[in-house]
Order: sequence, then structure tokens, then C-alpha cells
Amino acid sequence: MVIMAVSSSYPPYPPSPTFQPVLERIATEIGQTPGRGRPADYIPALAACDPRRFGMAVAEIDGTVYGVGDWRQPFSTQSITKVFTLALDLAREGDELWEHVGREPSGNPFNSLVQLEYENGIPRNPFINAGALVVTDRLQTRTGDAAGTLLAFLRAESGNAELTFDKEVAASEATHGDRNAALAHFMASYGNIDNPVPVLLEQYFRQCSIEASCADLALATSFLARHGLRADGSRLLTQSQAKQVNAVMLTCGTYDAAGDFAYRVGLPGKSGVGGGIIAVVPGRCTLCVWSPGLDERGNSVAGVAALDRFTTLTGVSVF
Amino acid sequence: MVIMAVSSSYPPYPPSPTFQPVLERIATEIGQTPGRGRPADYIPALAACDPRRFGMAVAEIDGTVYGVGDWRQPFSTQSITKVFTLALDLAREGDELWEHVGREPSGNPFNSLVQLEYENGIPRNPFINAGALVVTDRLQTRTGDAAGTLLAFLRAESGNAELTFDKEVAASEATHGDRNAALAHFMASYGNIDNPVPVLLEQYFRQCSIEASCADLALATSFLARHGLRADGSRLLTQSQAKQVNAVMLTCGTYDAAGDFAYRVGLPGKSGVGGGIIAVVPGRCTLCVWSPGLDERGNSVAGVAALDRFTTLTGVSVF
Amino acid sequence: MVIMAVSSSYPPYPPSPTFQPVLERIATEIGQTPGRGRPADYIPALAACDPRRFGMAVAEIDGTVYGVGDWRQPFSTQSITKVFTLALDLAREGDELWEHVGREPSGNPFNSLVQLEYENGIPRNPFINAGALVVTDRLQTRTGDAAGTLLAFLRAESGNAELTFDKEVAASEATHGDRNAALAHFMASYGNIDNPVPVLLEQYFRQCSIEASCADLALATSFLARHGLRADGSRLLTQSQAKQVNAVMLTCGTYDAAGDFAYRVGLPGKSGVGGGIIAVVPGRCTLCVWSPGLDERGNSVAGVAALDRFTTLTGVSVF
Amino acid sequence: MVIMAVSSSYPPYPPSPTFQPVLERIATEIGQTPGRGRPADYIPALAACDPRRFGMAVAEIDGTVYGVGDWRQPFSTQSITKVFTLALDLAREGDELWEHVGREPSGNPFNSLVQLEYENGIPRNPFINAGALVVTDRLQTRTGDAAGTLLAFLRAESGNAELTFDKEVAASEATHGDRNAALAHFMASYGNIDNPVPVLLEQYFRQCSIEASCADLALATSFLARHGLRADGSRLLTQSQAKQVNAVMLTCGTYDAAGDFAYRVGLPGKSGVGGGIIAVVPGRCTLCVWSPGLDERGNSVAGVAALDRFTTLTGVSVF
Repeated sequence: MVIMAVSSSYPPYPPSPTFQPVLERIATEIGQTPGRGRPADYIPALAACDPRRFGMAVAEIDGTVYGVGDWRQPFSTQSITKVFTLALDLAREGDELWEHVGREPSGNPFNSLVQLEYENGIPRNPFINAGALVVTDRLQTRTGDAAGTLLAFLRAESGNAELTFDKEVAASEATHGDRNAALAHFMASYGNIDNPVPVLLEQYFRQCSIEASCADLALATSFLARHGLRADGSRLLTQSQAKQVNAVMLTCGTYDAAGDFAYRVGLPGKSGVGGGIIAVVPGRCTLCVWSPGLDERGNSVAGVAALDRFTTLTGVSVF
Repeated sequence: MVIMAVSSSYPPYPPSPTFQPVLERIATEIGQTPGRGRPADYIPALAACDPRRFGMAVAEIDGTVYGVGDWRQPFSTQSITKVFTLALDLAREGDELWEHVGREPSGNPFNSLVQLEYENGIPRNPFINAGALVVTDRLQTRTGDAAGTLLAFLRAESGNAELTFDKEVAASEATHGDRNAALAHFMASYGNIDNPVPVLLEQYFRQCSIEASCADLALATSFLARHGLRADGSRLLTQSQAKQVNAVMLTCGTYDAAGDFAYRVGLPGKSGVGGGIIAVVPGRCTLCVWSPGLDERGNSVAGVAALDRFTTLTGVSVF
Repeated sequence: MVIMAVSSSYPPYPPSPTFQPVLERIATEIGQTPGRGRPADYIPALAACDPRRFGMAVAEIDGTVYGVGDWRQPFSTQSITKVFTLALDLAREGDELWEHVGREPSGNPFNSLVQLEYENGIPRNPFINAGALVVTDRLQTRTGDAAGTLLAFLRAESGNAELTFDKEVAASEATHGDRNAALAHFMASYGNIDNPVPVLLEQYFRQCSIEASCADLALATSFLARHGLRADGSRLLTQSQAKQVNAVMLTCGTYDAAGDFAYRVGLPGKSGVGGGIIAVVPGRCTLCVWSPGLDERGNSVAGVAALDRFTTLTGVSVF
Repeated sequence: MVIMAVSSSYPPYPPSPTFQPVLERIATEIGQTPGRGRPADYIPALAACDPRRFGMAVAEIDGTVYGVGDWRQPFSTQSITKVFTLALDLAREGDELWEHVGREPSGNPFNSLVQLEYENGIPRNPFINAGALVVTDRLQTRTGDAAGTLLAFLRAESGNAELTFDKEVAASEATHGDRNAALAHFMASYGNIDNPVPVLLEQYFRQCSIEASCADLALATSFLARHGLRADGSRLLTQSQAKQVNAVMLTCGTYDAAGDFAYRVGLPGKSGVGGGIIAVVPGRCTLCVWSPGLDERGNSVAGVAALDRFTTLTGVSVF
């Protein structure tokens, strides 16, 4: 595995004196047991990913970013985008959002309709699919273009104007979209969806299809390590709201494995079925790791292992 | 409300220059809206508590402890003891414990039998009643006296040799113990309980009946802020295990409100229906707050509010 | 309440010497406590129904039909049509149908998604909405026009060529169709729906919108009392299949009240939220009763009471 | 397989001119595919049963009984006794019983705790274990000896004074009784159990342990075909109550397979894990079949097949 210290295409990112050796050590260790897990198979573009791919980036809160392996390789962000739409909507409507989506762990597989039914169409949290649909629906109502608002934000924070939707992936999601359609119609039957379901689904599938690299995502996540401040110094979230998003990530960010992730990694994190995971060290830095092989709960095997090693080797943890 | 700076009955605890004014401010604020919530009503000794009582203590990791209000008043620890039996058992058997109890949030009210049935008698985490019964059962098998082992630990860590069981409360628990008996028999039907159910229940009810004050519990919790080290400098848990217990507290420590607690307070915590809550600031200090009035999810109203104010006023948070 | 012995618009139906006095007595009794229950309120056309309306018809297996009250007044058949689509599909594909829908009571409210999820998209029986969607989907695949096939059958069996769809009701159903859309998409995600969901839903809402009277429906149901023979003597179902449809009606025909209906009425029956209920006395006759006021489980209050009285007064019962 | 026409140890039971050839034909057919299914394995005495055993008896309402195969061989009645305790308690307290147990199918495996929790400790029907525990508890309160009352009734109706408990089976049940203990304690926590749980369980396990033959049970069930009249002509149940018990048997009598049983057999029936099944042809006769091999839902494979054949060959069915 080739370890790249710094990409020349980014403005000067000198290798961090602290974390770079750690990243290199992790990459070496991960490289010794490559290809664990299986890529998501319901979308052809994801199924075709080589499970041996691995990349990891760290972004300091001052914007310095460095990494190893495939850290500049764009991949399908999928559910990682749920963090950004949550923040973008929360910035606009504040606590009113929590009347439409909860913030408790789900205790059930990520697509479950059961709790939704028992709790009258209010999804348990913004990171299960039902909750993310509600957040996108509300952002759509407030902006008229939820996916476009998200893309503009990611481009601005990452400094990468080339980020875009992958139309093929969005189309694949739509083709296999019956379960999300069921969730949206079901919540609509409780009055918890504003937009027509086809409009909502299009926005939702587009946002899931955005491609970005570990470097891009680590930078885009930095506002959560900066207590709400964006890359340009403007404030997206209040300090309290940033803390709250981190709390929801820690308790709900990794599907039905949130407790296990907190136990092993001990950082707020959010995974996607594209194999990416972002994590936050509040006040210090953000991380993004990518490797397409997933465990049975939908989290990247090498990704969780790398984050586990990172917190063990550095002692960085919220606990 | 009278604010007591330091009790003279403890060896010299000078008021902390940092936290004492914060505690006093919180006590004043809480005193302005006294008596919110309702004491637990299923046990006469708890139902008789005056919901206007309020106490709060902070223990620095060096053993310094200070507080306000009723911080030296013993109260019924109830589910707070689940943290200590978890640590005591984990210290003895390590990861083998996790084959018998999970570490994921339950997503259901704390007594629910539903998930227990779907998951073949393996409770979701050690802080729901079913999980705590499993932990006590295993500690009983390893020690022959789970409740006694717990009491000895609490006495040693708090420096308070007078801590003891409240036999009346234990008897009340037994009288209203049908639900816990159901849980224990149900898990026994899956082979996940070793001891005879009556033996287990007696140990469990005794451990819940221990009385201790905020000062006692803040001190007894300090090993979790000290990354596993006990008051006498000996090691109870490895650094990794201490971090793991904190993670389980954050994701599962406050019944069905763990997400909300993480969102508002942002610290690992554990509540009990006696009205107490303990919390950990890893590497820094521990807190214990007590006020008997509970919200509908079983957590102290004034207790959660006080911890919320503490983290807001001090900026202390894991996020 | 005016009791009409025989409508002159039908070919000669002499009043039955046996049942007519019973019907009249029931109508008198029901008339003494008019207007119990509430009409379904989610469809304007149903909500506008006067809950004091009441009609009841009996059809002998020789085609003789008589009745009381509003027995010739068309009303919205709604879920009663599920019996006929079941028979029409079963006649075409036989036992293969049972690989796609079960025949066990649901033990849950009629729209529940819970069991559907636990049982991998196979609905429990053909009379819950999910199961009826599967049956309509399969009939649509086999006929290209499920609703039209149903209407033709009802016209032929009732001898009433004027039976038709109520377009306004069908449009209202579509407007409030999110829950059925959710069910259809959810089952489609398990591969248990053949047709595009919008096509299926249109067929489904059309079939629910058919208007027919007690006389029409009692006659149309007669094939189940004739062990499978249609009005013209041709065979729709084998004797065994007719018995099976009756069995499914008895165990699953009245939403979550099937046990109660069997206990009180003791006949195979099927209700609809339009306030109608059909019932079968195998080998003897069929009944249809209509009154728009529903109980909290969606069954006509006066309708169940009338059938209860009928079986009590006549001693007719399968038990 | 030896077919025994009539046992000489009973007072004169001349072979019925109608049913005996049918029974013999069924026995021959069943004998061609012997030993299907597996005996219940949690109780040694049941596990040791030879799955090739088969017996079947019919009792006319005049007390004439005849049979084939092992129809005079005593076997463990198990859940079949739930029918008799239901009738004995209903005779004593009438409709008040239904405030403590429902009469709707459960839609879940027979030991499920889920619906019990959702419905506040009121079991769905008297034939799931939870419901049977409630019925036994209430009969115990009214008689002081529920199991003894049951045994006396079975002896009187069967004319067999030698019927008795199998102490070894009762002891085995108690050894594997954790699940029933969990159910009882769980309902006690809702206030739906009167007697101390250990007392209730002893009564319950004793009643399940009664041994009786097909002949005994067919005779003991006859009151349900006689619309409530006992063998001596006295009335146990009103005509309406007898009809109601039959309705509950049809909708709830065969665990999670009630719909399938109604569909295939079309008679009120009740099975037990000992391999027995009783069935009622109201106004005509009763049946009991026994063969120890069970299907995955706990019903005798050969037993259901034999009843299916019986109704097919004779045309006897409630539908």
C-alpha cells in the first residue's frame, strides 16, 4: 500500500508532526489483513468496489489535512451526508426540528418500520433512514433544493469545487428505492412529510449519491470540531448545537452498532454503506476513513478497525 | 436552600476554587423551581421522599470532594449501583461478559421484554434491568456474595464505612419484584442465568437498596475518571475497560433517555429511581446529584437540569 | 324504520316464510337504539353517511332474496370486496397464491407493518390491507384488469348490471392512500409485488369504491353458501376451496375482532369500513347487513348486533 | 397397524355404522407414512414416545365411542386440558372471565411475551400459555384445587375413574418451567394473577400432566357437541357459552396454526404437545386423535392429517 503524505493538488498541507506516523502505522497494519467484509451489493457502483481499497485522512481544525492510502480517492458518501443535512436544517429551524424527529438510539436495524409505527410516524433519530428522510424533507421545504444546498456546503467546506452527484448511483438508489418509498409514504400518512413523496425521494437519492474523498469529508466535518464554525470563520451552528450533533452521532451514528462503536472507538462518528466513516475529536480534529468492505451491520470493517487503532494509539477519545 | 460548602465530618476537603461557585449558582437556580417531578411511588420509602430535596457533589480525581445542598444526605442508590457491579464483574471476567449481555442502547422502556425475546435472552446492555440481573448473576457466581462485594467496594472508595443496605427498601423491592422475577425466569429459560432465581433476586434487591450520599457516590465513581484506578492507587479496570464503561454509560445510562441526556448533558452518566445521577468527566472529576422528583422516563428532573447547567456553565463536556 | 318486504324491481322474491319475521324483529330492535358508532371519517363520502341507516338482506341459495330497511340502498363496499378478489384469484391460480399471502389471523390492527416486517413481506392473510394488495396485484397480473374483473363478477352474481365504481370515493382513497402506498412499496422491496405500485394502487382503490346494496352483496356471496357454484350453476371454486374461503373469513374477516365476531356471531363474515358486513351460512343462505356507524375496530356496530341477534334467534351458527 | 374396532373394557360401544369404516380407512392411510414429525423433546416422558403410534376415536353425542389404532392408549394430554379448565371456569364466573383474558387469535408463537406487554398483562386468549395460566389461576381461586376439579370432571365425563396425574411429567414440566414462571410473574406485575406464582405453577403443571386416551378425551369433550350438557344430562354451560367455547377453539385452538387448521380441517379443535388433538362437530360428535410426532408449530402431523381426511371423506365441516 502506497502511503501518500500530502497531495500537491491541495494548498500547502504540511504533514502533521503528531498524527502522520500514526496514520502510516495504521495503514500498514490494515494492509496486512486486506479485503475484509463485503461491499454493499444492492447498488452496482458500490458492489464493484475493491474491498482492499483503504484511505484515511485527518483534518486539524486549522484546515491542515493529511492522510494515507486512498485518502484522495472519491467514493460514494451515502449516509455520511445525513450529518450535513442535519446540521444545515438545524441551523435553519433550531429545536423545532426535534418535534418531527427524535434523538434516541433506535435499538433496531436501520430500516425498521416497527418503532416508526409505535411512535406515530416520528422517527427515533436523524440517522436512521426514516429520520434522514424527515430532515431532507424539511430542508427541501426551507431551501427548495435540499441536495443542491448540501452540495454547495460540501464544496465550500472542502475547498473542492469539483464535488458532484453521481447520477448513476442516484438512479440505482431509485431503482431499489421501495423501502425508502415505503418509509416516506408511511410517515406521510402521519402528516410528518411536507413534500410529495417522489420529490422527496429524488432529493434524498441525489444527496446520497455525492462522491467525495476522505480529505474532502474530513474538512467538511471540521465545523463539528470547531464548535460550529465553518471554514471561513462564519458560524453555522451555535456551540450548543454543535455539541448536540456530536452527541447524536455518538449515540446513533453507526446503525445498530452505535454502542459497540462508542465502546471501541469512543468518538462521535457516522458511517455510510459506501464504506466511509467520519469521526470528530471535539476541539481538536476530524477524521475520515474509507474501505468498502462492510460488516453485517453496514459499517466498514477496516474503517472501524482503523479508528479503533487511532484512538488506542493516540489516547484520543471523548472518554 | 442552604448551601453547605464542606462537611466537617470528612477529612479536609477545601472548597475547589473552580467548581464551588458553579455548584452554588446551580443550587440557587434549582431552588427557584423546587419540587418538580414525582418520587418513585412503588416503594414506600422512596415515595415518602420530599421532592424539594436537592444535593450535588463534585469529586476531583485527587479525592477532593465538595458540594451543595443535601450532598451529605444518604439516599437510595437503586440503579446507580449497576455501574459498580458492571465494573466489578468486568474486572473479574473481562470480555467474556459480553457474550451474555450486549452493549447497545435498548430503544425501549427499561423493563421491556420484547427485545429480550427477539434476541434469545441476551439483554441489550448492562443497565436495563435484564442486563443488570445477568451481571449480578455472574458476579454472584464468581464471588458467592455479589451484594456484599459491591458494598465493600463502595465503602472503600467513598471512605465511608457506614454505608449499608436498607433492609426495608430491599423487602419492598421483593414485594414488587414480579417484573424482575419474570425477566430472570425468562432469561433462565434461555440458559442465561446461572444461579437459582430466588438467590439472584435477593442479591439484586439488596444491591439496589444501598444508601449513599452524593459525596459517597462521586468518590466511588472516581475510578472511572481515573481511567480505572481505585482510591488506593490499585487498578480495578484497564484504561481501555474504564473507557468502555464510560461509553456504555453515555449510550445506555439513562433508560430510554440516553440520547436526550447525551444531547443535553454530554457526559457519561447513570441515574437511579431514588433520584440520584452520577456523571463522569474523564481525566478530570466526577459528579453526583440527587433530587427525588422523577420525569416520566425515571430520571431526576432537577438532577438532569443541574448537570445540564453544570456543563453549560463550565464548558465541560466530552463533545 | 320502514321495513320493506320485497322490492318490486327484482324478479319475484317472495318473502321467506322462515327468515322474514326474524329480519323484521331485528330491524325493530335495532331501530330502538339508532345511530350507534361513527362513520369512517377519512373519506368525505363515507363520513357524510347517516349512522341511523340500517338495512339487512338474506339470500337463500336458490337466489331468493329478501330484506328489511335500507336493504336496496347502495353503499360503499370497501373491504368486503376482498372476499371476491380472493375467490377470483384463487379460482385462477389455486394454492400457489398461498406462497405469497398467509391465512393466519394477524393479531394486530389491520394496517400493521410490524408482522409484515418480521415475516419478510408475506402478509398474514388476504383480508388485512397488505394481503388484499397482494391478491389484487396477482389478479391484475392474470387478468390485466383486476377491478374490472371484480365488477363483472359482482354484476353477474347480483343480477344488477348497474353496479359501478364511485369515482369520487376512489379519488378520496387515493388522496389518503399513503399507508397503502407504504404497504405496497414495502412488500415490493421483498419482491412480493409484480405490478408498478401506482398501477396496483389504482386498481385497489377502484375495487374498494364499488357501490352495492345488501341485496346485491348477499346474492354475490351466495357462491360461498353453494360450495363454490355461481348463480348460473357454473363452478367458480371447488368445494374444498369454498370451504377454505369460509374458514379464512371466520378467522380473519373482521380485522382485529375476528375472535370476538366468531364468539358472538359464529359465522364466516367480512366487514368493510363503509358499514357493510357479509356472512355465510354454508349450504343454507348468505346475509348482508349495512349500517354506517363503526366501532373502534372498524366494524359496523348495528351490523354486528344484527348478525348476533340473527344467529341467536334462528339458532343458525356453524358452532 | 392393528385396527381395534371396540374395546371390551368399556360398556357396550357397538361400532358406528357411519364412521367406523372412515376411521379404518384413515388409519390405513396414516399407517402408510408412519412416524412423521418429532415428539416434544423438552420432557423426557414425551420425548420417549414412539412417533409411529397412532390412535383415533369418535364419540357420538349419545355416548357411543369407537376408534382405531391406539385409541385406548393413555397419553399426556398437555394443552388439551386448557379447553376443560376454560369451560369449568366459564361455568362458574361467566363473562367476568373475559375482563382478564381476551378471545382473539394471538398471531404469534404460543409463548410470546410481546403482545402480553403491549396489552398490559391481559393475554390474547385462553389457549396460549399466558391465557391458560390466568384461567387456572381463577379456577384455583374459586375451587381451591383447580387441577383436582379438572381431574374429577374428566373422570366423570369419560366414565374412566382411573384417570390420574403423571407425577413424573408434572415434575419435568416444573424443571423446565422458567418460561411459564416468567409469564406468571409478568402478569402478576400487572395485577392479573391472584394466587402466589408457585401455587399457580404447581396447579398448572399438574393439570397438564393428566394422562388420558383418545376414547376418554372424545367422551370428555362431548359436552361441547351437546351444546353444554354433560354426560349425566346436567348443564355445564349455557348453549351460548358452548358455542362460544367452540368459536374460541376454532380461532385460537392450534397455536400459531389456527388459520391453517380452520382452512384444512374446518372444525373447532385443540391440540397438545403430547400429540393429541380434540375436535368438535357441533350437534353431532367429537373426535380425538393421537400421534406423538409434531410439526414445527407444535401440532401432531398425523393428527392434523387424520382430521383433514376425516372432514374430506365425510363432508363433515362447519363450513
